[in-house]
Formats: sequence, C-alpha cells, structure tokens
Amino acid sequence: MALVVQKYGGTSVADINKLENVARRVLKSKEAGNDIIVVLSAMAGETDRLIQLAHKVADEPDGREYDALISTGEQLTVTLLSIILNRMGFRAKSLLGYQVKIVTDRSYTKARIFHIDTKKICKELKKGTIVVVAGFQGVDKDGNITTLGRGGSDTSAVALAAALKADVCDIYTDVDGIYTADPNICRKARRLSRISYDEMLEMARAGAKVLQPRSIELAKKYEVPVYVRSSFTNEGGTLVTKEDMEMEREVVCGVTYDRDQAKITVVRVPDRPGIAARLFTPLAHHNIMVDMIIQNASLEGYTDLTFTVSRKEIKKAHELVEQVAREIGADRVEIDADVSKISIIGVGMISHSGVAAKMFTALAGEGVNILMISTSEIKLSCVIQEKYTELAVSALHDAFDLDKR
Amino acid sequence: MALVVQKYGGTSVADINKLENVARRVLKSKEAGNDIIVVLSAMAGETDRLIQLAHKVADEPDGREYDALISTGEQLTVTLLSIILNRMGFRAKSLLGYQVKIVTDRSYTKARIFHIDTKKICKELKKGTIVVVAGFQGVDKDGNITTLGRGGSDTSAVALAAALKADVCDIYTDVDGIYTADPNICRKARRLSRISYDEMLEMARAGAKVLQPRSIELAKKYEVPVYVRSSFTNEGGTLVTKEDMEMEREVVCGVTYDRDQAKITVVRVPDRPGIAARLFTPLAHHNIMVDMIIQNASLEGYTDLTFTVSRKEIKKAHELVEQVAREIGADRVEIDADVSKISIIGVGMISHSGVAAKMFTALAGEGVNILMISTSEIKLSCVIQEKYTELAVSALHDAFDLDKR
Repeated sequence: MALVVQKYGGTSVADINKLENVARRVLKSKEAGNDIIVVLSAMAGETDRLIQLAHKVADEPDGREYDALISTGEQLTVTLLSIILNRMGFRAKSLLGYQVKIVTDRSYTKARIFHIDTKKICKELKKGTIVVVAGFQGVDKDGNITTLGRGGSDTSAVALAAALKADVCDIYTDVDGIYTADPNICRKARRLSRISYDEMLEMARAGAKVLQPRSIELAKKYEVPVYVRSSFTNEGGTLVTKEDMEMEREVVCGVTYDRDQAKITVVRVPDRPGIAARLFTPLAHHNIMVDMIIQNASLEGYTDLTFTVSRKEIKKAHELVEQVAREIGADRVEIDADVSKISIIGVGMISHSGVAAKMFTALAGEGVNILMISTSEIKLSCVIQEKYTELAVSALHDAFDLDKR
Repeated sequence: MALVVQKYGGTSVADINKLENVARRVLKSKEAGNDIIVVLSAMAGETDRLIQLAHKVADEPDGREYDALISTGEQLTVTLLSIILNRMGFRAKSLLGYQVKIVTDRSYTKARIFHIDTKKICKELKKGTIVVVAGFQGVDKDGNITTLGRGGSDTSAVALAAALKADVCDIYTDVDGIYTADPNICRKARRLSRISYDEMLEMARAGAKVLQPRSIELAKKYEVPVYVRSSFTNEGGTLVTKEDMEMEREVVCGVTYDRDQAKITVVRVPDRPGIAARLFTPLAHHNIMVDMIIQNASLEGYTDLTFTVSRKEIKKAHELVEQVAREIGADRVEIDADVSKISIIGVGMISHSGVAAKMFTALAGEGVNILMISTSEIKLSCVIQEKYTELAVSALHDAFDLDKR
C-alpha cells in the first residue's frame, strides 16, 4: 500500500469518455490498496477558450479576475471525475485550491506556492476518500484565486506529492515517457526508462514539452519520484529520479529542439562596463525572457552582442533594443526569426571530452551552419537555421548512438 | 448617494456584448454617486449545459460535486464583467460565495442562506470598488460550495441587499416589469408601477416567472424595496414594496397561469383519519411538491381526493399514489396531464365580495369548465383544461378591467 499522486493532463481528460477512462485507472490503483490523490488539468483547449474570452473583453485583463476566470476549467474536470467515481460506488471528493489550501503568493497568472495545508486531504484519505484536486490553481492568504502559469498542474501534482511525502507522483499524459528525441521528427527515437532530475530539467528547458520545468525543480528539491506515463496504454513510462550509481551513465541521453527562438544581434557595441545591463534591463521590465546570450571578445574597443528571445516577443524586443542601441552608440541591430535551438543533454557530458567536437562535426557533416553556441554542465546548445531542425536532430541522434542502449 | 444592489439575469449577461451593456448600466449608477453591488447569473443556457454534463456522467450526480460544477457559470460572468469594468478604468472586484462569505446550510442544490458576512464587501465599497458577486452560490461552514436552487440569484441579490441594508435592490431582467398578465398571451396586459410583496409572492407562486418566490419572501421579511426592470431599456419598471396607504388598492392586480400542472384524482377513498397523510407522505419522501389539494365532502363514508403536481413528476407521482390507493382500498386513480392553473391575485380581494363569482362567470361565459378551485386570502386559482389557457387569461383580464388603472 502506497500513497500515490496521479496527475492527468488536458488530453487525458479531454471529454467524458476520457474522464471515464481516467476513473477506471484511478480505481485500479485504489483497488490495489493505494491511497490516491488525483490532480487534473482542464479539458484540452478549455483554458485557451477562457483566455480568449478574457482577451475578447480587454487587451490586458485584470490579473485577479483573469485567474478566477481561467481556473474554472479545472473546477469542471475535478467535479465531473468525482461524480463519476461516486457513481461507480467509491467515495470521492473534489478539492479546489482554496479548499485544500494551496497557498501561493499574489503573482496572478504565475503564482508560486508558499505552502500546502495537508490536513483536509489527510482527513479524507483516512476515510478512504479518493481526493481529486484541481491543478493549476491556488489561493493567496486573502482568499483570492491564483493560477500557477502554463502547465501549472504538473507543479500542483509534484508539490502535493512533496507535501504529503507521497511514494510516487505519476504524470499521465498523451505520450508514454521521455524519449531520446521527439519521435515525431526522429523515427529512431527511443524511450528512456530512467532519467535524472537535472537531465530532465535541461531537456524541458531546451524544448521537450512533457513536463513543466518548475515541476521538475520542485521534484528534485524534495526528491519526489516522478513517473511519466501514458493515460492510454499500460506500457512504458519513464522514471524521473535522482542520479544514483545504478543509473545507466549514458554520455548523452537526449536531443531536443526549440523552434520558439529568435535571434537579435547588436553590432559594434562600444565595449564599456554597464552596456549589457542597459540592454537587458528594458527587456526585463517588459517581462521578455532572454534565453541564450553571447558576447564576442572585444576588438578595438567594440564588441557584438547576440541573444535569443521567444519568437512571439521579437517585435517588442526589437523596438526596445533599437532604442538602447542608438543611445549607447552601437552600429546597428540585426534580427533573425528563422532560427531554432538544438541541444544535447546528459549528465555524462561533464566527464567526457570530445562531446562538443562530436556535435559540431555531426552538424558540419550535414552542412548545418552553427549561429550560436552555449554550454552548461550537462547541456550543449546550438542555434541553427530553422529549416535544418529535423536534419540536425536526426544527425545528432545517430552521432551519439541514442537508438542503442 | 445610495447603496444599490443590481442583479442581472441570464438573458442580460448572455454574451459579451450584453456584458458590455451591463457594464455601462453599472457605471451610470456608479457615476451618479452610488455604491454598487452587482449580482450576476450565469449566461443564459450555461447552467443548463453544466447540468446536462453532470447528468451525462451519472443519473444521480453526487450533490456536493454537482453544486461545485454548476456554480462555475456565475464565476465566468462575474470575472468577465470585472475585467470589463477594470478595462473601463473603474475599480471592480468579483467575489464568489466563499469569498463574500455567503454561508448556507449543506442542502446541496437547494441550500438556504444562514448568514452573509458583509465585512469584505463593506471594506471594498469604502475603497470605491464596484463589488461583483456571483449569484446562486454559497458556501457551507466547512468550505463546501453550495447552490441555492433555480433562480437562486434573485435570492442572492435580495439577501445581500437585506444584509447590507441597501436602499434598493434592482432586478434587471428581459421584461420591463410586472404585468397584469403575460403580455405574450394577453395583448391588453398592463405594466404595474407598484405591487405589494404578498401579491408578488402569490403571482410568482401562481406562475409569473419574473422573480423567484423565495427572494420575495426574503424581501418582505427584511422590507427590501425590489425594483424589477429591463436591462435593455430605461423605461418602465415595477416596484415591489410593502403595502401602504398610497398604494393603489386595485381589487385584482393580475392574472397568472401555470401550465406545469398535472392532476391526480384518487376516486372513492374510504374516509378515515390518516388517509391523506398516507397518500402524501410517499410523495414528500420523493421530493414531489404538491400544489393544490381538494377533498370533497364525504358521501356514504367515501370521498374523492384531487391534487396537482408538476407535470414533470406525474409519472413518479402516479406510481406512488397507485400503490397507496390499493393499500387503502380506494376505487381507482385518475390522472390528467393536460391541465393548467389560472389565478387572479390582489390584496383588495379580501374586502371585496363577488370576486369569485365574477371569475367563475367570466370563465363560464367562454365555455371554460372549472376542474378544481382553490383560494387564499389574496388569490383565487382554478384548474382548467390546458387548451383554454390563453382564452381564460384574456377573459379574466377583461372581466376585472385590468387594462385600465
């Protein structure tokens, strides 16, 4: 008998038939003797519908009201699943963010969890209740509804698992685990049976869409074993866990790509202290996230500064940077929105030389020009022209023998 | 400067254009210097959609989950209106049942309000905030979401007006007031400028659909002036208020009808004490509301007992009554679902003789057969064959000169 948190994403609860399917899965685990906390997302597309509704009435909807509006999607799925479970003869109870209480700060649309009160859940579990918690939402200390940002239900699930010291946090989604590359563009992609928190984190940040990076940070911090699996089959699954001796030490565990990239270069910037701060402060004020930043070595007192932002924000970023560029006496600003970022990830990279060389060689072998390079302890990313994305992923997958164990 | 509660029904908030219209109305009153509490229903049809969803997954959905599900409709409208008001530059805040707190008992789907905490609302009003409260919903003392039953938003509005000692409770709907008869079937129908709580209550109970009877009871108890008006025009309106000397003492103020009637007659019931109790107890246990009950004078130790129920419940009621009828040795049970109830209402009826005679004469003059008669101090109801409904309403409207002041 274990304490299990099961999270089901939007495609797993997309309609009533899928909810019935979720109910059967939940009961299977319940009947095996486990205590179950289910965490649900909204039906696929529902949150987008609500967001569109909000933006139909205001360009910048009031944050408090916006969160209270978009949190209704999860209220629908948790109550419907509870109705189904009750109909099947089981005791089930939905709990919204304020009912649990999942206490957050008041940063509407991107709230951070302060604390989860486990009293109510534990009381219900003791009675044998299946507790169905609305993902994505919390409540601030004054009772205002908050939401945790895109993919926030993953974070809800992991945070609950951490607070309740659950034995495992199952993340049910529409794929059956974490792959060495996106199987849609790399047919040799292989499912990993295990992956470390750090690798998963880098993969998520580098474009793999299965788990929200915040949820993985949280899982790592509290050492919550996270099991990514499909809600449609019983096969497969990938365990995200801490690195240990038994873990297969593959040098590289996966290749990811991210098309949501655009590159900005400020050409011939006078190389003085404080220049980078002047460039990036306005972007931060406008909440524009900067991903990679590269500054060349200074030549004759001038340097070039290149960085990437989300493609959606290239227009605004360009405006802001143009203005600073004029003020600091840079030559000009160049933008390129047709780029993508390819990354290889693996804890083994630290101790293996030649990984970078192998990556560059593989890309060169396919005629792919590298526009930017960035490294971390367990990740190597290159920005390339977007049209080479699939080609580069397959080439790297082959070069690092990712199809073989 | 006054404290005003404004309630808008489902047709007044049916889409985004209508919500914008509501916002403009609210601001007009706000800019006139009033403190405003807005109470909203769900968009027309939305609550029905949610109810259908619940019944798609279970024949008898769990009450707690059902209420948490169907209360999301109001959460949508209050947040959307608040977003619009904020966009227009006004401070507006939505409050859900648990945020206010509107504390109810735990009778899911038909909860009664125990107490309304006015602290949060008063604090917001002091800051100049327009407070937008979700109608129809409350919360029990353990934080479970409850709903107040069909048309419950009227009750929410009047209860808030009572708790806050508001100067007036405006009920905005798709008609511009209370009429002497349904204008759709009686073209001479005239709008009343005032009507007493008692008359309004009888009219609502007798089929007029503008206000929920519970809300009128509450208004009467706390002497809340209720002003029924259209959200689409600035004309008209009817004030529902306590009877006073100035109030025009019309003998009859209106004619109503109710087609949701079905008649059950238990024929030749042995006339013994306790028979009525045995007949009606099973109906009560199945939550079947009995409207009119008529028992004829006993003849040779036998009597006939006739009563009406909602047409939707005739099948179940028939089953239950058949069984008791056999047990108590009644002759047989007859049912008739093709009936309707016509009522005339007026506080003046008490002191005027001849009202009943005039009613029966008017019906007889049109060849309408009376199947049942029931009287109260300010109401006279007849059950007739349904096909005569429109004819009967118009005949009574004429007979009592309701088209003239």
